[in-house]
Amino acid sequence: MTRAALFEQIQKKQSYLCVGLDTDIRRIPRFLIQYEDPLFEFNKQIIDATRDLCVAYKPNLAFYEALGARGWRSLERTLEYIPEEHFVIADAKRGDIGNTSDLYARAFFEHLNVDALTVAPYMGADSVKPFLGFPGKWVIVLALTSNQGSVDFQMTPQEGGRLLYEKVMRKTMEWGSPDELMFVVGATHPEKFAEIRRIAPEHFLLVPGVGAQGGDLEGVSRHGRNEQLGLLVNSSRGILYAGDSEGFADEARLAAMAIQKQMREIL
Amino acid sequence: MTRAALFEQIQKKQSYLCVGLDTDIRRIPRFLIQYEDPLFEFNKQIIDATRDLCVAYKPNLAFYEALGARGWRSLERTLEYIPEEHFVIADAKRGDIGNTSDLYARAFFEHLNVDALTVAPYMGADSVKPFLGFPGKWVIVLALTSNQGSVDFQMTPQEGGRLLYEKVMRKTMEWGSPDELMFVVGATHPEKFAEIRRIAPEHFLLVPGVGAQGGDLEGVSRHGRNEQLGLLVNSSRGILYAGDSEGFADEARLAAMAIQKQMREIL
Repeated sequence: MTRAALFEQIQKKQSYLCVGLDTDIRRIPRFLIQYEDPLFEFNKQIIDATRDLCVAYKPNLAFYEALGARGWRSLERTLEYIPEEHFVIADAKRGDIGNTSDLYARAFFEHLNVDALTVAPYMGADSVKPFLGFPGKWVIVLALTSNQGSVDFQMTPQEGGRLLYEKVMRKTMEWGSPDELMFVVGATHPEKFAEIRRIAPEHFLLVPGVGAQGGDLEGVSRHGRNEQLGLLVNSSRGILYAGDSEGFADEARLAAMAIQKQMREIL
Repeated sequence: MTRAALFEQIQKKQSYLCVGLDTDIRRIPRFLIQYEDPLFEFNKQIIDATRDLCVAYKPNLAFYEALGARGWRSLERTLEYIPEEHFVIADAKRGDIGNTSDLYARAFFEHLNVDALTVAPYMGADSVKPFLGFPGKWVIVLALTSNQGSVDFQMTPQEGGRLLYEKVMRKTMEWGSPDELMFVVGATHPEKFAEIRRIAPEHFLLVPGVGAQGGDLEGVSRHGRNEQLGLLVNSSRGILYAGDSEGFADEARLAAMAIQKQMREIL
């Protein structure tokens, strides 16, 4: 999906919500276990309940891999079920030597046909570049993540005073344009968004950490938006596990509606 | 597998070779394609041909994931086939927020029952620590990787003069003991091994990059060994693709024997 098409979806739906499909077999409602493919059944109902309220879906691969080959089938079925109009992010946090990243790129962009993949930057240029150059496909580089551990390395000063995540952003921006490169910036660092927008005024930011992790949508949106908005805000657990009975999809819809309403006002 | 048991295997076999099962469907001999599970059939023959020459196997998950659910089945069958005496490393380069790393840890250590998992450190403490504390299981943290891109971030100076990979090693050593923590250090950086041994005198190092990537076994071993050796040296492509006909396993055995002979002399 191109940047223009993504922005068009945001305007049309008055939403920049990404629903994170962190579908945990231990947390889904118990009655779903009777289904042949409980993860897919859960995702299907979540997608049906939220598709008009969000512009993106982001399955975190860990939750599927945890079930081995069976989990991969659930993932593949979920990806097939997501409507064409949605931006699909494989939250995989991959990154390996060149020939391996190249293989990952084709696996995700050609075989699974997702729009975007999250990539860890630690291994540098040849671990990131193989994901670039696929028309309409995106690399989302981890810059400043939402977790506590982000202080350990990402926020430590480099020689010259810049923090590591700033260096990662500046360097990876040399490798790809704002039409193919986004950054992950956690909602748990609202004080950093102004500086991040100085570094990358044009890029889309994927913002996890609203909801269960404590981030604030209004603050993130005020400081993080650019002229074309440039934000995808993710919520996973706050939507998926809003309810835990047979009506879980209705509860999820209400949770997504509350966020989308706030987004409509901000837009 | 405990550190003592691993070192015992090394002495018994006079080898610290790890065979990297980077089994690429595009590179395996064509006649294998007729098999129901070509990746597994290839791995089975490679394992039969090298099991007495190596102490570890390291499947890189990218090559299996590239085939989706089918590839995961090949991986699972391969892991079941590897003899009990071998140290098994899932080269996954994972790392995510705490609750997700926790899920990965159980998936790899309990479901797939591997001995060790490679982990990317960029997301910090709560992305690494969930993999620690499983008895006999190991976390292998990416420190200084073998690829060209290692210069982009890993080798840049931090405030105070240390390089990022040094900071990663010093920090993660606070989280886990040498009985559960190893580091990836590429053979393509021989000049760094002396300094790395000053930082981590006791830890095992997993050393990729010998062979196809140009690293030198003798130099790495001289500078990288510690009192109990403390090295696992990986070769993937140089062994797997030594031959490309029906005799590929014999060719692989000859390639592994050449490395093991050199290791025996070094030991």
